Amino acid sequence: MNAEIIAVGTELLLGEIVNIDAQILSRVLSELGINVYYHTVVGDNEKRLAAAIEVAKGRSDIIITTGGLGPTYDDITKRVVAASFGKKLVMNDGELEKIRGYFKKTGREMSKNNESQALLPEGCTVLENDFGTAPGCAFEANGMHVLMLPGPPRECEPMAVRQMAAYLKSLSDSVIVSHSIHIFGIGESLVEDKIRDLAENMDNPTLAPYAKPGEVMLRVAAKAETRDKAEAEIWPVIEKIKRIFGSNVYGIDSPSLSHAVSELLLKRGKTLAAAESCTGGYLSKLITDVPGVSKTFLGGITAYSNRAKEKLLGIPRSRINEYGAVSEEIASDMARAAAETLDADIGVGITGYAGPDPDSQDTGTVFVSLFENGEFKNIKLCRPGGRDSIRYFAALSALNLIRQTLEA
Amino acid sequence: MNAEIIAVGTELLLGEIVNIDAQILSRVLSELGINVYYHTVVGDNEKRLAAAIEVAKGRSDIIITTGGLGPTYDDITKRVVAASFGKKLVMNDGELEKIRGYFKKTGREMSKNNESQALLPEGCTVLENDFGTAPGCAFEANGMHVLMLPGPPRECEPMAVRQMAAYLKSLSDSVIVSHSIHIFGIGESLVEDKIRDLAENMDNPTLAPYAKPGEVMLRVAAKAETRDKAEAEIWPVIEKIKRIFGSNVYGIDSPSLSHAVSELLLKRGKTLAAAESCTGGYLSKLITDVPGVSKTFLGGITAYSNRAKEKLLGIPRSRINEYGAVSEEIASDMARAAAETLDADIGVGITGYAGPDPDSQDTGTVFVSLFENGEFKNIKLCRPGGRDSIRYFAALSALNLIRQTLEA
Repeated sequence: MNAEIIAVGTELLLGEIVNIDAQILSRVLSELGINVYYHTVVGDNEKRLAAAIEVAKGRSDIIITTGGLGPTYDDITKRVVAASFGKKLVMNDGELEKIRGYFKKTGREMSKNNESQALLPEGCTVLENDFGTAPGCAFEANGMHVLMLPGPPRECEPMAVRQMAAYLKSLSDSVIVSHSIHIFGIGESLVEDKIRDLAENMDNPTLAPYAKPGEVMLRVAAKAETRDKAEAEIWPVIEKIKRIFGSNVYGIDSPSLSHAVSELLLKRGKTLAAAESCTGGYLSKLITDVPGVSKTFLGGITAYSNRAKEKLLGIPRSRINEYGAVSEEIASDMARAAAETLDADIGVGITGYAGPDPDSQDTGTVFVSLFENGEFKNIKLCRPGGRDSIRYFAALSALNLIRQTLEA
Repeated sequence: MNAEIIAVGTELLLGEIVNIDAQILSRVLSELGINVYYHTVVGDNEKRLAAAIEVAKGRSDIIITTGGLGPTYDDITKRVVAASFGKKLVMNDGELEKIRGYFKKTGREMSKNNESQALLPEGCTVLENDFGTAPGCAFEANGMHVLMLPGPPRECEPMAVRQMAAYLKSLSDSVIVSHSIHIFGIGESLVEDKIRDLAENMDNPTLAPYAKPGEVMLRVAAKAETRDKAEAEIWPVIEKIKRIFGSNVYGIDSPSLSHAVSELLLKRGKTLAAAESCTGGYLSKLITDVPGVSKTFLGGITAYSNRAKEKLLGIPRSRINEYGAVSEEIASDMARAAAETLDADIGVGITGYAGPDPDSQDTGTVFVSLFENGEFKNIKLCRPGGRDSIRYFAALSALNLIRQTLEA
């Protein structure tokens, strides 16, 4: 069985956004063992969408659309797809109630258009949208399977991972199981070099690297009759990978470095406090992405100005003048002040130059310091790139320093 | 004239990379006034690429491929495209010399395969590659224009912006100019309702809404012979939109609400400090996304635990017990403490329930308070959704409260 992804949206054709949905869906399909032969992007135009569906019918077994499920007049996908497969759109009362509930809860005015989001092809399976008002749907027609998902990636991704995967899994008689190995502190090409021999000699399971901002993920996937058999194939490979990359592996199937750190803090019963300058709250934000972290993460101080470094962290202006705000000394002062101010076991300080001046020698220089039991661990980063990626990498590096300390 | 972009590469179909090239090319084409009606992605497979080209021939005047120009056997684009248009591939001596020079300069060994990169369709225009060894090319055949560009975005983008644009400019006699209007505090469908009459009666310029997380963007685009003529068409529409949405419009062509707030703070000469609980540093992070904001954003306090609310903000435990940590009173205490601790003109406090318990009545309830000159402005948010979107929306709402205060 092979699938084609049709993304609907003029904003894609204008280059305003990139087709993230196609990547998300491709990954999920690849893990399910379903081949994707084509991606298509078409604008919010009924005639051209209909034509694209006709092309797809001639070459694909599964058609998955993203986008065009919104409440506005240029949201045409359901209308055009249903017509193309001779299906009527009928009002789904359950979904209508859900949409009404959503508006009631948010206290927002519901427009007549929003009701149209509950119109779905007759006899379809509803794919619930937990993050928006547009439900997705799936149906079978003429021996093909057709699925429609919403466009915004934050709605499309969870629906793809849960409902779409569940729907498609039932069409296949084998299972694909995969696990991800998360690596921080080694670049993608070096990771590739180190696994090349292993990866090239593997057929099932497969091993593939994915670069994520600031880190690398390796995915090990196996196809087998049962989940247990697939798992039995996968774990010896994971053990091999762990031996190759040692402490650079921060987790297996871990949603993020923040999650790994949060788990370690809870396990060790340690509390954490942060003082941030150039990252401006990014580290705190990443840590508090994890629910339930309030037991161990006491708080953070964004000391963006020197005034804040003095007032909130008690770092004398004379020390800032002596060493410079961006220095190992001030990062250490910040780490200790964070820990002491909040009576935390571990304090972390970050200070650096995030730019955006790419020509400055200093842009990308960041000092991270960790304070625990009267001792400091310091690292200095030199990361080229834009402001965003420098700040993100600095926050990740601080998380990694905390992780390594807790694992030691 | 309309164009179709065909990206060639199995890594795209596996979801290993996202189709950045399509976005790059679409932007360049849009600025040239050339309509893009379709994007296609196909793998490194001769038969399926040939089929995709046949489909494109039937619906597009310009076909632009990216990828598959490398030296290895699975780089099939030139071979398949040339065959499809009945062109021979011939060795281009100038390009061969350039490739040899490249290897000499980098001290790398040149393989026999690399020579094949200098094989180009007979009679084509060479599109020079300043960032790699694979030249691009353009030719006309059967009344169509065919262009081939390399896949790596850092090679594709400069070639698109310079050589491709120069080649295509000579084929077109109009430009497209667009501006974006950024709106916060009204949902997409309500925005749509309010502009429907206007949008439906417009042909050129066009008006289209785009939902972004937490906000809505309206794009006004006009096609004309010159940039000045296009601008003259657009601005009266922007003025109309501003009258419709009033203070919900936070900017024209503004990169983000943070940028708008940062500009206003600088203009008014005001300083800001933040105290965050459920957003955990997200507001500070968003504000410090903007370079140069350190003059006005003094710092922030992530008072995630009650201990931090006491120690860092001086809020007595008795008040937290009396009103609850998530309350208007504590948000106000936080706002005032932030301002007073850092001697800032404006203090903002955020406290709420970000979940992730979606069944809890309280999840999504957030209080935001702004303190200035002894007075408070308070808002209460009730936003369903995941932890991420609740936190993001709370931070945006705080930014918007700051903006409205500064604009008042």
